[in-house]
Amino acid sequence: MSRLWLFVVALGTAPWAEAASDQALNTAWVVLASALVFFMQAGFALLESGMSRAKNAVNVMMKNYMDGCVGSVAFWVVGFGLMFGSNLTGWFGMSHFAPHQGAPWDFTFLLFQMMFAATAATIASGAMAERTRYAGYLVGAVLISGFIYPVFGSWAWGGAYGGQGWLAKQGFVDFAGSTVVHSVGAWCALAGVLVLGPRMGRFGVDGSTRAIPGHNLSLVTLGGFVLWLGWFGFNAGSTLGVTENLGLIALNTHLAAVCGALGAVLALRSSARPVLLTSTINGSLGGLVGVTAGCASMLPGFAMLTGLIAGCLVVFGSQLLERLRIDDVVGAVPVHGLCGVWGTLAAGLFFTGDLFNPARVGVQALGIGAAFAWAFPMALIMYWIVAKTIGLRTSTLDEQRGLDYAEHAEEGYPEFNQAPIFDRNELARRS
Amino acid sequence: MSRLWLFVVALGTAPWAEAASDQALNTAWVVLASALVFFMQAGFALLESGMSRAKNAVNVMMKNYMDGCVGSVAFWVVGFGLMFGSNLTGWFGMSHFAPHQGAPWDFTFLLFQMMFAATAATIASGAMAERTRYAGYLVGAVLISGFIYPVFGSWAWGGAYGGQGWLAKQGFVDFAGSTVVHSVGAWCALAGVLVLGPRMGRFGVDGSTRAIPGHNLSLVTLGGFVLWLGWFGFNAGSTLGVTENLGLIALNTHLAAVCGALGAVLALRSSARPVLLTSTINGSLGGLVGVTAGCASMLPGFAMLTGLIAGCLVVFGSQLLERLRIDDVVGAVPVHGLCGVWGTLAAGLFFTGDLFNPARVGVQALGIGAAFAWAFPMALIMYWIVAKTIGLRTSTLDEQRGLDYAEHAEEGYPEFNQAPIFDRNELARRS
Amino acid sequence: MSRLWLFVVALGTAPWAEAASDQALNTAWVVLASALVFFMQAGFALLESGMSRAKNAVNVMMKNYMDGCVGSVAFWVVGFGLMFGSNLTGWFGMSHFAPHQGAPWDFTFLLFQMMFAATAATIASGAMAERTRYAGYLVGAVLISGFIYPVFGSWAWGGAYGGQGWLAKQGFVDFAGSTVVHSVGAWCALAGVLVLGPRMGRFGVDGSTRAIPGHNLSLVTLGGFVLWLGWFGFNAGSTLGVTENLGLIALNTHLAAVCGALGAVLALRSSARPVLLTSTINGSLGGLVGVTAGCASMLPGFAMLTGLIAGCLVVFGSQLLERLRIDDVVGAVPVHGLCGVWGTLAAGLFFTGDLFNPARVGVQALGIGAAFAWAFPMALIMYWIVAKTIGLRTSTLDEQRGLDYAEHAEEGYPEFNQAPIFDRNELARRS
Repeated sequence: MSRLWLFVVALGTAPWAEAASDQALNTAWVVLASALVFFMQAGFALLESGMSRAKNAVNVMMKNYMDGCVGSVAFWVVGFGLMFGSNLTGWFGMSHFAPHQGAPWDFTFLLFQMMFAATAATIASGAMAERTRYAGYLVGAVLISGFIYPVFGSWAWGGAYGGQGWLAKQGFVDFAGSTVVHSVGAWCALAGVLVLGPRMGRFGVDGSTRAIPGHNLSLVTLGGFVLWLGWFGFNAGSTLGVTENLGLIALNTHLAAVCGALGAVLALRSSARPVLLTSTINGSLGGLVGVTAGCASMLPGFAMLTGLIAGCLVVFGSQLLERLRIDDVVGAVPVHGLCGVWGTLAAGLFFTGDLFNPARVGVQALGIGAAFAWAFPMALIMYWIVAKTIGLRTSTLDEQRGLDYAEHAEEGYPEFNQAPIFDRNELARRS
Repeated sequence: MSRLWLFVVALGTAPWAEAASDQALNTAWVVLASALVFFMQAGFALLESGMSRAKNAVNVMMKNYMDGCVGSVAFWVVGFGLMFGSNLTGWFGMSHFAPHQGAPWDFTFLLFQMMFAATAATIASGAMAERTRYAGYLVGAVLISGFIYPVFGSWAWGGAYGGQGWLAKQGFVDFAGSTVVHSVGAWCALAGVLVLGPRMGRFGVDGSTRAIPGHNLSLVTLGGFVLWLGWFGFNAGSTLGVTENLGLIALNTHLAAVCGALGAVLALRSSARPVLLTSTINGSLGGLVGVTAGCASMLPGFAMLTGLIAGCLVVFGSQLLERLRIDDVVGAVPVHGLCGVWGTLAAGLFFTGDLFNPARVGVQALGIGAAFAWAFPMALIMYWIVAKTIGLRTSTLDEQRGLDYAEHAEEGYPEFNQAPIFDRNELARRS
Repeated sequence: MSRLWLFVVALGTAPWAEAASDQALNTAWVVLASALVFFMQAGFALLESGMSRAKNAVNVMMKNYMDGCVGSVAFWVVGFGLMFGSNLTGWFGMSHFAPHQGAPWDFTFLLFQMMFAATAATIASGAMAERTRYAGYLVGAVLISGFIYPVFGSWAWGGAYGGQGWLAKQGFVDFAGSTVVHSVGAWCALAGVLVLGPRMGRFGVDGSTRAIPGHNLSLVTLGGFVLWLGWFGFNAGSTLGVTENLGLIALNTHLAAVCGALGAVLALRSSARPVLLTSTINGSLGGLVGVTAGCASMLPGFAMLTGLIAGCLVVFGSQLLERLRIDDVVGAVPVHGLCGVWGTLAAGLFFTGDLFNPARVGVQALGIGAAFAWAFPMALIMYWIVAKTIGLRTSTLDEQRGLDYAEHAEEGYPEFNQAPIFDRNELARRS
């Protein structure tokens, strides 16, 4: 073959004829990061579905597939403007609703932020699994993506198109959203499970507690891996551009996940409990949530410490919820809530060049408190209204039959004989 | 630890000693996009296998694993030359067969295009699932990747090494291949299912229709997420380089998928049918196919509209096929065919700066017609010859036993008791 | 909407205000490649779990999730320093243990290398599946990542912070680690299965051989796709930067995988054996292992030949192991060991501009021999000590019950009735 002579006619012009601008490079980076953050939706779907019973597998998958869809639209119509629009008061944005035109970078920025909003909304789905009505859940996802998340977001990150949020002005550090995304999502989840109440059979009338094992731990593990993968985009993408600091951010992300898993194992060992796969994976996710706030501004040793403590918190937090008889199916509140709190404090404690500065930690605590004070009551009201109007909790019969049959007219695994052992126990107890 | 002094000896020289050229940047971008498009093969495999019965799970997986392999070789030997070789007539290329040497960019370009050819070939596999002989299917995949797809491709995108395709000269716009890849693949699939006929039990002799549920909707959902992820590479990679427009392309891709899912839900609701998970996911894929042609040249609002209509088309197209008693197992013809047609029209209708120009829409219609006029009869002849020679449809006994047993000597899930309810019904009816 | 005015306040400054340096670009590239190599852990987990029985599904997943965690920490504490620290003797590094501070690039480099170390450690897990104690396995993973792999690595790639390995000085070519990562991992796996002995029921006392089918071939296929995807990061990331050669590397990677699958199919056909899905996928992985050494320095035709022969080697190597009554559950020794040997030779044989140079091939053979001479005896001693102290092989009862029940107190699929056909056969034979 002779020397090749290259003449690409796609779109009429060779794209590299013009030098790639720095903005083009940052665009490419953020688009890739957005794709990775998008893929976290698959991770959540796998993890949550695998931790639920087979009779609800389709329901969990549908919720995770659709909350990203309705959440993206809600964020586009209202949320983006509330969060990044001209923020003169410091409390919410007031421009850029339903953005349709803009400079190239605006579209890139919108895409990345849309993925974040979808992540915040999807956190509630796992906690509320197996007894929530599909329509009620989706209304919640719309309001989280379109209102609760963006308003708090505007305080910490807002005002891309003028002004700045009040919390940002205090010096609040939350690089990729331990508080802004994860804790806010978790407080909404906590409100949801409180309004819903526990699944039938989860807590006995005699004070006993019953574990309800998920139907597919292979899917749970794959979900853990996919979330871990997506988190590289979540954290390193939050630079919004190609910088030399990406390596530290990605390394911290990985090490915190590693140490989160190890922390969960140690916590389980030290309390003489079985080292469950589900707890171990939740430990790594807790590490990831924990490092999200400070990944760009702490050294690797501190990221490991942050992850290790986060992994322990996942275990102890799950035990605490169980003692309080709160039924969080996948452990979303410990993973995203508690570890989000800890991670935001850690971002202050371990800030490179300004270690253990009480003033800085105080601002972090202020942001943590503000997130809870905003998101939890708002979500409580929201789910309460949903419960009183279109309905949030399914009927007892539907819960027993499974939501796949009751709400979706489909089965996840129609050819496989399933042994509904938990329902059987339950029926025995009731009769 | 003291300051680190860096001296990387891998390959003898630090790679960043020389400034990264723009061509190196574009190479990195296209390699990443190629990896994402490659991963779409996994998405197709999961979606199609999950929508089939467990007795054919291995067969569907094998077909999807191998069609990319034989398709890559066929495209390398013949297809690339036909599609991108020196195209002086405008009808097919005549150089660069089996390319072995070249400039660095040539290898990058070949890789990306090879992934596209494999995508075009794999579209037929899902439609023809559960009753096609393995060898016959692979012969079809070779001819689609090596001949049917590249010849049409040369009309719209061809002549990278000299000349240009006749359709490109008319001003046909199909940025990433709504028609070139998806419709061409779908028309081949349509030909295949017509030659094959429906699966046993799909349509009753009394005119009734029976749904045959897939064996694993968790895999279907994961397949949907993986395809959506891969599509960021498919569309944004089609820039062939790092440009500021990537953000708009990726945003349009995401929004069209979102609105495709919503369109399918609305269409099902409005026709008072159950909102199935499979239909919802197919709706989002229809949105992705629809936006593929115009993602680089329409504003986000139009991308959403394109996706919304595509989602509706998936639902109505599936109902139409069912009424015509055509058995397309996964809905490939509505998703890739109908939405490919609509998307190519939409790329003309919503072209930024030249909205609703009838001349432009006319050229788009010409391209759509040319794709059908070329791919459908060619595939019909091809599958007819395959059927008459090595055989395309399995025996009744093999179809009933399942292709895994009949053709692969393996079972997908050997330890799980499967309830072959559909075969049982069928046997009852026949006796 | 009026023109948008952009003012991003995240972190106080727009990241693209400063021009992206080449080092920043290389950082972005290596971070993305690291994420892809990380995702290979998920591929291994899926492949190995799917090839095992359902009663061990959780155990395999846990091993794969945790070996990356303990391996990352071991590599960080000791391995990185042994491998890349100041290597004045040429035999091991002596600085940079537990690196906590450094230049931005140091963190990036550490991240990428950490992912490689985890890959080397995880290769043994599949070979040793279904009869290894969890704690014993993890001790092995720590020592492989922290000691066996990095010491050999220092010979071929070492001394990033001063000096160079003795093998590198000879001109040994192993671009991304056919020998350094894959063969070293495989020789550890071989030592492990020799110390363990075969699973109960794998080889009859009458000399017969029984295949023990994996429980989920859908997961196996997905694992194959995920590994193939990750390999683009593994090979193209090993440039450590954005170069024009990435396209050739990625194309060679893809073509070798394609031809590896085809080689396995041809080898099976020619020996009149059934073309199993598992063998086909292993063939493609063999092709990937084979091209890893020479992907940056051979032309595509040679990459295809390398892959084709690797695919054949996977089939014949598996048959050989079976004849030797060595029980390698997933075929890790043929895939990573034999194909690693062949690929390292191929990198010498097909070196662009220096084809078939005996001196070059001799150096390659020296490196291959050195890898075996180091890794195999070290791993043999290691697993022997583990077996004599904390224990490596589970009890007969635990093996029969399954490791999920025995070691993890969890079931993979608690709601699905499983038919333990193989155990039943076994029990019949024993009674």
